[in-house]
Amino acid sequence: MTFEIISVGTELLLGSILNTNAQYLSRALSELGFDVYYTTAVGDNSGRLRAALEAASKRADAVITTGGLGPTEDDLTKETIAEFCNLRCVMDEKSLRRIEERFSSGHMYMPKSNMKQAELPEGCIILENDNGTAPGAVVESGGKIFIMLPGPPSEMKPMFESKVKPYLRKFSSGVIRSKTVKVFGLGESAVDEMLGDLIKSSKNPSVAPYAKPGQVELRITAKADTDDKARAMIEPVYKKICEILGDKVYGTGIDNSLEKTAVEALIKRGLSVTCAESCTGGMVAQKITSVPGASECFLGGVVTYSNSEKMRLLGVRAETLERYGAVSEQTALEMSAGARAAAGADIAVSTTGIAGPGGGTDEKPVGLVYVSVCSESCHKAIKLNLTGGRDAVRERASLHALDLIRREAT
Amino acid sequence: MTFEIISVGTELLLGSILNTNAQYLSRALSELGFDVYYTTAVGDNSGRLRAALEAASKRADAVITTGGLGPTEDDLTKETIAEFCNLRCVMDEKSLRRIEERFSSGHMYMPKSNMKQAELPEGCIILENDNGTAPGAVVESGGKIFIMLPGPPSEMKPMFESKVKPYLRKFSSGVIRSKTVKVFGLGESAVDEMLGDLIKSSKNPSVAPYAKPGQVELRITAKADTDDKARAMIEPVYKKICEILGDKVYGTGIDNSLEKTAVEALIKRGLSVTCAESCTGGMVAQKITSVPGASECFLGGVVTYSNSEKMRLLGVRAETLERYGAVSEQTALEMSAGARAAAGADIAVSTTGIAGPGGGTDEKPVGLVYVSVCSESCHKAIKLNLTGGRDAVRERASLHALDLIRREAT
Repeated sequence: MTFEIISVGTELLLGSILNTNAQYLSRALSELGFDVYYTTAVGDNSGRLRAALEAASKRADAVITTGGLGPTEDDLTKETIAEFCNLRCVMDEKSLRRIEERFSSGHMYMPKSNMKQAELPEGCIILENDNGTAPGAVVESGGKIFIMLPGPPSEMKPMFESKVKPYLRKFSSGVIRSKTVKVFGLGESAVDEMLGDLIKSSKNPSVAPYAKPGQVELRITAKADTDDKARAMIEPVYKKICEILGDKVYGTGIDNSLEKTAVEALIKRGLSVTCAESCTGGMVAQKITSVPGASECFLGGVVTYSNSEKMRLLGVRAETLERYGAVSEQTALEMSAGARAAAGADIAVSTTGIAGPGGGTDEKPVGLVYVSVCSESCHKAIKLNLTGGRDAVRERASLHALDLIRREAT
Repeated sequence: MTFEIISVGTELLLGSILNTNAQYLSRALSELGFDVYYTTAVGDNSGRLRAALEAASKRADAVITTGGLGPTEDDLTKETIAEFCNLRCVMDEKSLRRIEERFSSGHMYMPKSNMKQAELPEGCIILENDNGTAPGAVVESGGKIFIMLPGPPSEMKPMFESKVKPYLRKFSSGVIRSKTVKVFGLGESAVDEMLGDLIKSSKNPSVAPYAKPGQVELRITAKADTDDKARAMIEPVYKKICEILGDKVYGTGIDNSLEKTAVEALIKRGLSVTCAESCTGGMVAQKITSVPGASECFLGGVVTYSNSEKMRLLGVRAETLERYGAVSEQTALEMSAGARAAAGADIAVSTTGIAGPGGGTDEKPVGLVYVSVCSESCHKAIKLNLTGGRDAVRERASLHALDLIRREAT
């Protein structure tokens, strides 16, 4: 079964917003085993939307639209699809009551224009909107399926997950399951080379690498009759990947991250952590504290940008700064040791480097970063030569610091 | 003149990557005064790409493609467009030499497959690629224009800016200029209401609001014969907006930010800054240090997540924490005063709050945040009730802290 996605909204064609809906739906449909051959964006214009519907319904079995379900005159998706399928739009009393209740529960006046949102193509399957006023709809007409979803991702995604997925299940033969493997410390080409045929000749399960900033994700995808069978097909491939990549694999799950893995490991072992940052400027602390519950292991951290603050807060010696410079292995080591002692933490990490664009020299170029860790059993620093501009250098240096924490905590 | 954008790549239809190229080109073409009525994404499939070209060339005067110029067998854009226009692809010696040089200067072996990238439709205008191996091309055929650009944004964007824009100028009647006004402290609907007809009845110049996380951007756009005329049309509208919104306007320019405005103001006045963060967990420091040259005004900061660290590093009194709690106006005030004194900075800001998802009570719900500033002339705290989840609460609390810095520094 093939799908086509039509994103409706002039703001897309002006480039005012990024079309994240098309990506979300493409991915979700692929994971359900459906093919998507085209996605289109079209403005709030009935004639051009109709032309897009004509083209799409010739090429695909089902069309999903996003956007154009709002209360204004510009919002034309439902009306255009109804017309295209020779259907009238009729007021749905239940949907109208839901919209009215949404306004009254927020103590808000409901503009007349919102009534239009309850007018739906006759005979459609109504998709209730738990996060906004515009209901979605499914129209089955002339052997084709038209699914209309609202434009705001905060309404579209939950509607797709809770209403459209169950509807689509009857068309899906078998299930598709994925497992995402998170890798840090290897580039995409290195992963490619190490896994070789495991990626190249993979069919079912397939193994696909995705490069993320400073990291690589591997997606193992299997198609089978049942969920259990698909999972059973994935497991041996996952084990094989772990065997080959070793401790470069830090976790699984698409929402996993180095900081999440690190924080969970620290909490599990009852360890506390602190950080002393120079070039990363708070990014390590910010990432750690982005994990809910981080206060169970994170006491606090310091951002010591100036030499005076490195001395005052971390006890870095003036002599060290003078002799080796702020960006040096020695300073990084004293920073982590000083942070650990001052905060009374089990593990401390530190970063010092030249993020750029200015400040580099021949001897210490932009991208040179030292990251250090200090725990009861370990005190070391690693030297990095990072590329890609200020943001990328800071991001990747932060990831190395988190990786050192995760390794100490596991 | 109307354009259509075709993004080529199966990874787009699988949802593996987000189509940022379409947004970039849509925006750039709109700003040049061209209309874009459709954008399409299609996979690495010659037949389907050809169908997309047929549809696009019927509907538009010019087609821009991105992607499919790589060295592999999957990369079919040039070949498909050449075939569609009844042209042969021929080896371009100059392009071949550029590709060979790119490999040899990187001390890399050039695979044979890369030679294919120098084969271009006969008679095309070649667009040199300064950031990768694949040249782009312009084909003028049958009264239509086909512009082929590489897929990676890091290659596509500079090629569009330096090669395609000058080429397109001859088709553009007049110029379109925009000025982006940055607003903090007002929601989109409040801005809408305050500006009223300035937005609603605006044509040329037009005024359009865009909601960004915690902020609003206003884009003033004018079309005129010359750049000077367009700029002269924008200025009075900009002044009017500043009059109405007052000091909620913090700057102009699409790449401007609160942190950039704050850092520039601090450096200009020779002031230093520090921060003491609890709920924002390093985000304020991270944002400040994201601005190149921040070391000229930023000494350092502390992330005091635990009560003990608030006392040790900032001198917050145990009595205050006991009586009012860590999330209180009193604690926020002592944090900023303590941070300022300890670091010897001109200005200090502090944040303390409940970012969630856990930790909230009836009295102190998730989203309650106090942000405080301390300078020679000012010591105050503001109370915020933020919504939208942990990330949004932290982000918006950080922006308020940066806004307090920018107000103290200007």
